[in-house]
Amino acid sequence: MSPTTSLAPLPRFQTIAIFGKHMAGGTAQSLLQIAECLVTTGRRVLFESETVQNFSITGFESMSLREIGETADAAIIVGGDGTMLGIARQLAPFDVPLIGVNQGRLGFMTDVSLDRMMPMLQEMLNGSAVSEHRTLLDGVIMREGSIMNHTLALNDVVLSRGSGSGMIELHVEVDGNFMYNQRSDGLIVATPTGSTAYSLSAGGPILQPSVKGFAMVPIAPHALSNRPIVVPDSSEIMIEVMGGREANINFDMQSVARLQHNDRIIIRRSEHVVTFLHPQGWNYYDTLREKLHWNEYPSVEGRLK
Amino acid sequence: MSPTTSLAPLPRFQTIAIFGKHMAGGTAQSLLQIAECLVTTGRRVLFESETVQNFSITGFESMSLREIGETADAAIIVGGDGTMLGIARQLAPFDVPLIGVNQGRLGFMTDVSLDRMMPMLQEMLNGSAVSEHRTLLDGVIMREGSIMNHTLALNDVVLSRGSGSGMIELHVEVDGNFMYNQRSDGLIVATPTGSTAYSLSAGGPILQPSVKGFAMVPIAPHALSNRPIVVPDSSEIMIEVMGGREANINFDMQSVARLQHNDRIIIRRSEHVVTFLHPQGWNYYDTLREKLHWNEYPSVEGRLK
Amino acid sequence: MSPTTSLAPLPRFQTIAIFGKHMAGGTAQSLLQIAECLVTTGRRVLFESETVQNFSITGFESMSLREIGETADAAIIVGGDGTMLGIARQLAPFDVPLIGVNQGRLGFMTDVSLDRMMPMLQEMLNGSAVSEHRTLLDGVIMREGSIMNHTLALNDVVLSRGSGSGMIELHVEVDGNFMYNQRSDGLIVATPTGSTAYSLSAGGPILQPSVKGFAMVPIAPHALSNRPIVVPDSSEIMIEVMGGREANINFDMQSVARLQHNDRIIIRRSEHVVTFLHPQGWNYYDTLREKLHWNEYPSVEGRLK
Amino acid sequence: MSPTTSLAPLPRFQTIAIFGKHMAGGTAQSLLQIAECLVTTGRRVLFESETVQNFSITGFESMSLREIGETADAAIIVGGDGTMLGIARQLAPFDVPLIGVNQGRLGFMTDVSLDRMMPMLQEMLNGSAVSEHRTLLDGVIMREGSIMNHTLALNDVVLSRGSGSGMIELHVEVDGNFMYNQRSDGLIVATPTGSTAYSLSAGGPILQPSVKGFAMVPIAPHALSNRPIVVPDSSEIMIEVMGGREANINFDMQSVARLQHNDRIIIRRSEHVVTFLHPQGWNYYDTLREKLHWNEYPSVEGRLK
Repeated sequence: MSPTTSLAPLPRFQTIAIFGKHMAGGTAQSLLQIAECLVTTGRRVLFESETVQNFSITGFESMSLREIGETADAAIIVGGDGTMLGIARQLAPFDVPLIGVNQGRLGFMTDVSLDRMMPMLQEMLNGSAVSEHRTLLDGVIMREGSIMNHTLALNDVVLSRGSGSGMIELHVEVDGNFMYNQRSDGLIVATPTGSTAYSLSAGGPILQPSVKGFAMVPIAPHALSNRPIVVPDSSEIMIEVMGGREANINFDMQSVARLQHNDRIIIRRSEHVVTFLHPQGWNYYDTLREKLHWNEYPSVEGRLK
Repeated sequence: MSPTTSLAPLPRFQTIAIFGKHMAGGTAQSLLQIAECLVTTGRRVLFESETVQNFSITGFESMSLREIGETADAAIIVGGDGTMLGIARQLAPFDVPLIGVNQGRLGFMTDVSLDRMMPMLQEMLNGSAVSEHRTLLDGVIMREGSIMNHTLALNDVVLSRGSGSGMIELHVEVDGNFMYNQRSDGLIVATPTGSTAYSLSAGGPILQPSVKGFAMVPIAPHALSNRPIVVPDSSEIMIEVMGGREANINFDMQSVARLQHNDRIIIRRSEHVVTFLHPQGWNYYDTLREKLHWNEYPSVEGRLK
Repeated sequence: MSPTTSLAPLPRFQTIAIFGKHMAGGTAQSLLQIAECLVTTGRRVLFESETVQNFSITGFESMSLREIGETADAAIIVGGDGTMLGIARQLAPFDVPLIGVNQGRLGFMTDVSLDRMMPMLQEMLNGSAVSEHRTLLDGVIMREGSIMNHTLALNDVVLSRGSGSGMIELHVEVDGNFMYNQRSDGLIVATPTGSTAYSLSAGGPILQPSVKGFAMVPIAPHALSNRPIVVPDSSEIMIEVMGGREANINFDMQSVARLQHNDRIIIRRSEHVVTFLHPQGWNYYDTLREKLHWNEYPSVEGRLK
Repeated sequence: MSPTTSLAPLPRFQTIAIFGKHMAGGTAQSLLQIAECLVTTGRRVLFESETVQNFSITGFESMSLREIGETADAAIIVGGDGTMLGIARQLAPFDVPLIGVNQGRLGFMTDVSLDRMMPMLQEMLNGSAVSEHRTLLDGVIMREGSIMNHTLALNDVVLSRGSGSGMIELHVEVDGNFMYNQRSDGLIVATPTGSTAYSLSAGGPILQPSVKGFAMVPIAPHALSNRPIVVPDSSEIMIEVMGGREANINFDMQSVARLQHNDRIIIRRSEHVVTFLHPQGWNYYDTLREKLHWNEYPSVEGRLK
């Protein structure tokens, strides 16, 4: 058990919100099944309004995400890690614990299987869950001294070159100290949660979720010694766009702005955290091993003992 | 400034030990020059006994490393990072702050230049220094339930295959949770201090020194998805040797034991820390940029903006 | 000496074209100095028309790049590797040997120093040079069965995602055999010449110039086992865009097209080659060692023998 | 189809040798089943003498590996890639085409499934097979001017540090040209066949088997710019041991010698080749995709299109 997980008895969760990703066939039925089961145990069920529309759900309360944030004791998200990522980031300011239910292969954040869901959900909502906190990035875009944008990210903040050719050049400071000028395809600042996403593709390390750090991972850097670096999550990272024909920024791959030279991005740990509820017995390393197929193939052949 | 560095006024350091690496020509003179300068300012100077022998130093007190540990307020190490590494590890139980003086190119841990040393040293010993704490690894080798060896490491604990061909197979647990069975040339567990040493060669991330984590970096792993992972430094890492013709362990590359199947290595953060004193204005990122030649070559050419 | 280099006596080069990159101060003087020296030794000098304009050169013949291709026995390019890259690609159909003169730090392709140029140039133009052939990529973009574009590349053909978020998905065949569907930031197909450019940043191998192969290097691939692969340069590589919001293609980072789903890129070795003339004693490994600072820093510290 | 594969009609193979790896239960039966089937079709069957002993096979001719080399038209190897590797290297001087039959998961070199073997084998032995040539490395160890050892390798020649701590230092020349002095855990010289074995673990590129090159892949190199390099297979690679407490060499992980300072290793392409026979329709990229689980997991999650 890591420092940020807890097995202390959790309160019984009474008002439960349900989010579902608009997908193929069976989901509406699954969502209703969950809802009815919760009602049976005396709970109040709220459906997010978009989910209601997408699945033509009737007979339950419908609320906006903001209203849910202010009302729900917990939220159940039915979908993949991508769905969870978007909702978690938006619900972060409200501190509503989240349960991820996955219809297919289990995800890093959606680790309750739809098949075996009902008894597990009841147990979790009765307080018998592993509660785990994840840090978020708080990113501010400054242009000519003014705040242009202020966004949260659960996975990563990514500065990257535009669609044209060429690199971008970034000036990077940490806690007011000059780190380097980097020329590359871009720079990823990832939370532990994001360390198994894009950052990993770009050669970044895996950060166990309770590591209090952020990974700064260059994408195809010009200098071969520009290696991934992990800084404490108490750091203030400042990135200034110095060169390149086009530079863009996105947060969790979802909101994008186009940057100009001398725009500055200030990245800190958010004051908010995301709380995930996992089933009893959940363990990060099990998920990691499963997702990265450790102890399985692919592996390098022909090396004899 | 990172959380583990401090600019709070330090005490004036009164009793100063001096260590020198046995090297070419001029060192004896440098060591004496430092000693005499310290005496002039009313300080007591202790020379480590091996240094005394190697450089035929007379006219100063001579002490063993252990006695120095119990007596000195601070120690000056003249040499490279390798020299510092060995002495720091041995002095760690005594909590004596260390100053590294380098005769050649500045190191990660030896950042006072011999050329410009005197005024800087006086300032530092008067309490005007950046004080920085580094974590150590505490490694225990267990064989058939008994402790076979107990050693500290400032850089890293490395399990690796022997000189013959073939991989070793390691079973790894963190905090009692199974992480993976790994087949590889070996596994490096590195502190932030060690993250810029062997671990970096093997593809590990750089950990800023105040990151409270350890990097676990596989060497030429059989499975391509066995990537470096950073765990909190509060973790207990257990590595059991499962297979391979020959497995060895070393601590800071200096003490080596040969392991047998089913030997277990337990690695934790040591209760001790190493304290480095740096000159005013010292900054980790400056050192990193200098040592890794960031913003300089080598770099990839021919990519036009 | 590699198979594609030759020390056989080269013909005396009589008609020499000069290209110069528009840069700071002294270049015009350097260009004229070269020209006058060549005239002194009885050679005919042609200036490329753009160079004539940029440097206000008078008193010499001026020709378009195409006319130079049809007329010159050799061309001298004064600039960096980027300048050489663009001109080499355009002159490739004419098989004019190229000499690269660099005003600053020597490049991979521009290895005659401006300082020590005159005697060296005379020698080289008298036939005493190392002649080396470099392969080019011939890339065709097909849309709905029609050729949309046909371009050469000396370094690389790069397909990459657009400025928005998200990956692109590529279907790759080699010689009509399915290789993989790859999800990534992009895919680089690099010649040996290009293997030390962008491809190296993205983790690709260095290909010695006489290796008859192309490197296919994924950029931040989704699957961790998507590693760089070298295929024979007799291969026909077909890449079809399967998914992603925006995909782009460029040749030597200089000409860019925006691709649609189902566009197909066919890449082969060009029937043309680029011939570089190097000074006597030139050796690829010397250049490589110099450019990548082998045997120098940066290097990993603290590992004792 | 790559340049080194051929679909031209092959001769009918008449005298067939069988090798089996000493393993669990069913193999003897499988070997006899193959043998009887071959006899039925009028062929002469030879069993390797060690195989005869290990499986107590009676009723068939028994020969040493050398005799088989001089007698057989083709050889069937039942086992994994490791078994094939050892036999292929020993049979290389005799130019006997090899068929690899795998009882478990198909290998890179053992690609006929035991389950569906009989009809496939008959077809292949009747000349309807894909014939493919693989290059070998020829390695000579020189000590004080004398040849100490001369060995072939199908996968790789590996120089590596001994079991103690510390790096080795190697001086590397290619075709008489100085490449670099490298400090590292070791250096792998791999054929295309070996490029998917140890070399891949150490970060080397995949070389399609008909690429006429060798990969030189450093293991945990001290200098971060010491990247894998591919040289033409016509190169002569000379590696001299310059430093390190202990250096070892092995060929295909199987024969090992301990080296001294100033020992020189000369590596060239062997005059011999190994010929593999594959079933009709065999394709290298299919094998690669299967073995590296391309288009499958593990992959990086959470990146939305």
